Amino acid sequence: MEAPISFEIRARDGDARMGRLLTPHGEIATPCFMPVGTRAVVKAMAPDELWGMGYRLVLANAYHLAVRPGPDLVHQMGGIARFMGFRGAILTDSGGFQAMSLAKINSIDEGGIRFRSHLDGAPIVLTPENAIELQQSLGTDIMMALDECTPFPADHARALTSLEMTARWAERCIRARTSTTQALFGIVQGSVYADLRRMSAAQITALPFDGFATGGLSVGEPKPIMREMAAVSATLLPRDRPHYLMGVGTPQDLLACIAMGYDMFDCVLPTRNARNGGAFTSEGRLAIKRATYARDERPLDPRCDCRCCTTFSRAYLRHLHLSGEILAARALTEHNLFFYARLMREAQAAIASGTYRTFAAYVTNLIDDGENAVNGNKIDVV
Amino acid sequence: MEAPISFEIRARDGDARMGRLLTPHGEIATPCFMPVGTRAVVKAMAPDELWGMGYRLVLANAYHLAVRPGPDLVHQMGGIARFMGFRGAILTDSGGFQAMSLAKINSIDEGGIRFRSHLDGAPIVLTPENAIELQQSLGTDIMMALDECTPFPADHARALTSLEMTARWAERCIRARTSTTQALFGIVQGSVYADLRRMSAAQITALPFDGFATGGLSVGEPKPIMREMAAVSATLLPRDRPHYLMGVGTPQDLLACIAMGYDMFDCVLPTRNARNGGAFTSEGRLAIKRATYARDERPLDPRCDCRCCTTFSRAYLRHLHLSGEILAARALTEHNLFFYARLMREAQAAIASGTYRTFAAYVTNLIDDGENAVNGNKIDVV
Repeated sequence: MEAPISFEIRARDGDARMGRLLTPHGEIATPCFMPVGTRAVVKAMAPDELWGMGYRLVLANAYHLAVRPGPDLVHQMGGIARFMGFRGAILTDSGGFQAMSLAKINSIDEGGIRFRSHLDGAPIVLTPENAIELQQSLGTDIMMALDECTPFPADHARALTSLEMTARWAERCIRARTSTTQALFGIVQGSVYADLRRMSAAQITALPFDGFATGGLSVGEPKPIMREMAAVSATLLPRDRPHYLMGVGTPQDLLACIAMGYDMFDCVLPTRNARNGGAFTSEGRLAIKRATYARDERPLDPRCDCRCCTTFSRAYLRHLHLSGEILAARALTEHNLFFYARLMREAQAAIASGTYRTFAAYVTNLIDDGENAVNGNKIDVV
Repeated sequence: MEAPISFEIRARDGDARMGRLLTPHGEIATPCFMPVGTRAVVKAMAPDELWGMGYRLVLANAYHLAVRPGPDLVHQMGGIARFMGFRGAILTDSGGFQAMSLAKINSIDEGGIRFRSHLDGAPIVLTPENAIELQQSLGTDIMMALDECTPFPADHARALTSLEMTARWAERCIRARTSTTQALFGIVQGSVYADLRRMSAAQITALPFDGFATGGLSVGEPKPIMREMAAVSATLLPRDRPHYLMGVGTPQDLLACIAMGYDMFDCVLPTRNARNGGAFTSEGRLAIKRATYARDERPLDPRCDCRCCTTFSRAYLRHLHLSGEILAARALTEHNLFFYARLMREAQAAIASGTYRTFAAYVTNLIDDGENAVNGNKIDVV
């Protein structure tokens, strides 16, 4: 059968790749960042605003949408993208991450993941088979295989057991898939153990997935280990398929992991931080609540052309944030997503021109806000 | 001295007037509705969105801005309009309404209104003199005199005492004003007593205000009485000055009160109701939470061209609202304000073409949702 998506690498620069991912809902330039739209909405944003910033692929969450409003309703409304009024494509996480992050209310065994709905306590079972059925029903462009997102910390034996179940589930997902228009990505686990990452990558990449993700990172492990494991996994993924690093990360993380050969990222940071008054700027992070901004007439980021930065002063944004006004969440979210979108476009251009290493080092230095200083040592990000 | 604003009546249709109000921050077509931006933000909206819908005049609240972020800061930032990034003009309420609505924490006597800040309990005194100084400092285009917004119910004697103090305060406001670029409106009180409305109107209109407001309505009295008092007051206001009916109202109220000769309105209904899931539509009000809309693919209002109605289904808006998503508040607020703005534009055109009575009756019938049925009797609104 014809592949539901195609991926074309147009330029390489070291291990970094610039390319195009073609889905049933349009073309996505890579490397790309996916805003997180858990409940079929990127919090505080309207879909035309996402589109206007250049976003063509949004992440939604199959588990959350299964709970509310339910897959039948979304299906009847034409799938997630149409339901939320977004002209682009949708990738859905299958629920493995929720199984970990909502761990108190579930159990996991070979059969699948048992949840209790966070809304009404109703029992929900997610199996490899129904996770695929659910995502097919939601009309997503890129489905993720059901995995166990191994919690951190996990000892070697636990991590091994976990990745082996993930591999068996991956095969079941492949068999369960009936859609010929929706892509399916496999997920490599292995916790913080390089040997297990290699084992999991060998198992998962042996299966006919349309793309491959590195999962189980950004779950509490130290950042140097996150990057080390991301790097190990990246080298093991088929070069002609899209590489997706799940749940990562800061702008610095994205720049570092693009250099490893990752093409796709998602993270709640730009949207969640915005609602808490945190902005990503070309001069590093900024907490708008700080008293020092009370009478600051400058925009959030003097180098930024977004609507927030061309309209509002820091003084006004601080007033909105301290007053709990919705516009504070809107403005900071819009700025942060604009910042991430521009970063991805600049990364694409740098890869195309063979200057990625210099670009990433320059930007990382510019936005350095100390996050890379771990135990007093700077991490070499490129 | 030259008047800070000018008001030109371009067409009359019965008592209804269509005109232009020229302020230092631009021209406003009347009749106009002012969105309420208490804290220098119309909740959930960005200033360019208000402008795009046609709003040229926004109401802010001097008391709230005095408490936070403080008049000095707003002044330093260039006044309310510039502070909030709005290209249009600003009218500020002086604090009289807050004295009533936050009644537990204040006392009122001849000297002024004593508040305790709703934020930190700090004592605040609003006098006629410092209410003007405050509004001048905030850089508002249209200042409101400090009044006592007589609570409902008030007996005749209490209402008389109240309006007489309001009249003395009005004179003090006139004397306190030093700005030659900011307009000042007087406010007619008199509770629900026609004789007192006439007395107050005689006192207030004898003073050299740039415009006149009918206050003390929409504070809990029955709707027929609100309209009766609004009508009494309207006939007593100088015909060549703008007439502002404070705190009113529903679309039906606006249509009825435009027919009485009012030019300006403000109300929290379209914005507050939106955040509670209530929409004003061409078919009457709609509560998006209702189960009947769970799978409804239609827009909120099939006759509406706003971004909300051209993008989202009722099913999606219901999902957003039940999920507590910010986008629900945004989308419904945008729709409701679009609905109000269009209603005002249509009213202006109807007055200009001499068809206002027919227009208002037609629309009122179209959007009838029972609110005019009081004790089983329909109110004749035009």
